[in-house]
Amino acid sequence: MRVLGVDPGLTRCGIGVVDSTGGRGVEFVAVDVVRTPAHAPLPARLLAVADAADRWIAAFSPDVVAVERVFSQHNVRSVMGTAQASGVIALAAARAGLPVAFHTPSEVKASVTGAGRADKAQVTTMVTRLLRLDAPPRPADAADALALAICHCWRGPMQDRMAQAQARAAELARHHKARLAAAAKGAR
Amino acid sequence: MRVLGVDPGLTRCGIGVVDSTGGRGVEFVAVDVVRTPAHAPLPARLLAVADAADRWIAAFSPDVVAVERVFSQHNVRSVMGTAQASGVIALAAARAGLPVAFHTPSEVKASVTGAGRADKAQVTTMVTRLLRLDAPPRPADAADALALAICHCWRGPMQDRMAQAQARAAELARHHKARLAAAAKGAR
Repeated sequence: MRVLGVDPGLTRCGIGVVDSTGGRGVEFVAVDVVRTPAHAPLPARLLAVADAADRWIAAFSPDVVAVERVFSQHNVRSVMGTAQASGVIALAAARAGLPVAFHTPSEVKASVTGAGRADKAQVTTMVTRLLRLDAPPRPADAADALALAICHCWRGPMQDRMAQAQARAAELARHHKARLAAAAKGAR
Repeated sequence: MRVLGVDPGLTRCGIGVVDSTGGRGVEFVAVDVVRTPAHAPLPARLLAVADAADRWIAAFSPDVVAVERVFSQHNVRSVMGTAQASGVIALAAARAGLPVAFHTPSEVKASVTGAGRADKAQVTTMVTRLLRLDAPPRPADAADALALAICHCWRGPMQDRMAQAQARAAELARHHKARLAAAAKGAR
């Protein structure tokens, strides 16, 4: 399974590709950081991020796109831009017919370092070690994109099984409800 | 000038077209509300909104796209979806080579009703009157999209002049700074 991990952002958008080689095995494929100037109009910045996502999807043919789930408790202004960037990335994946998975920052940190509150340096160190890189990926956004891809390599299969189980449960609940309704109608 | 106004959202996304006929003259062209099911995956919902924006841009050839500026002080969960929807709409405009203008909800309300804190009913009433519609546009998201388009018909030209003046001022400041730096270098 090949995962395209994206740490969404307008000023810096980390984007990386990791292959899952079975079990806990992960292999580095590529990483970069897309930057857009802060003084550029928002639509032009979104276009640059969207075009980069399209190019990376076309160039690396990932099986799935993993995106960091955005929360709004932090800086209000920057979180709006981050949400918009994550929106155009999810759209790029949807247009390419690829599934999109979201992971929270603490899920990503817990996956790669074992601690949900790990700092950026710890994440970078673990990503460098796990992918056997010669040098730590810089800036932190590049390491975060790779961490997200690794996290999905490990959590994705479980997430899929959970989603399938939930869908089955919902289907069963619908059937059960329909049978109850039919029985109630028959009893009247 | 033809304006495509969008009240971004995932559950309901209002989309409307208004022509500015000079001065305060505005004419209704079209309106609709794009809905996506709450249980659908986010990428599929963003794709539906993006495809609708593409279709409306192709069908009505607007000169500009006006989008409601999203704030995050309200419901955190829904505001993220709204921000992501506004992102894919701005992207659709950028891909079509169209300028995008943002107006805040209070700018829109103040424009069409004269009061920045007007309620939804007042906005709908004024939109119906200004566009000489036979019936009020329903739901409120449809009226909001038209209100946004009207707001841009009236505020857009001023916004453009402000942006040009700001760009000129920034250019002058750069020149001035460069001359000061050159003078300081000469004096050393």
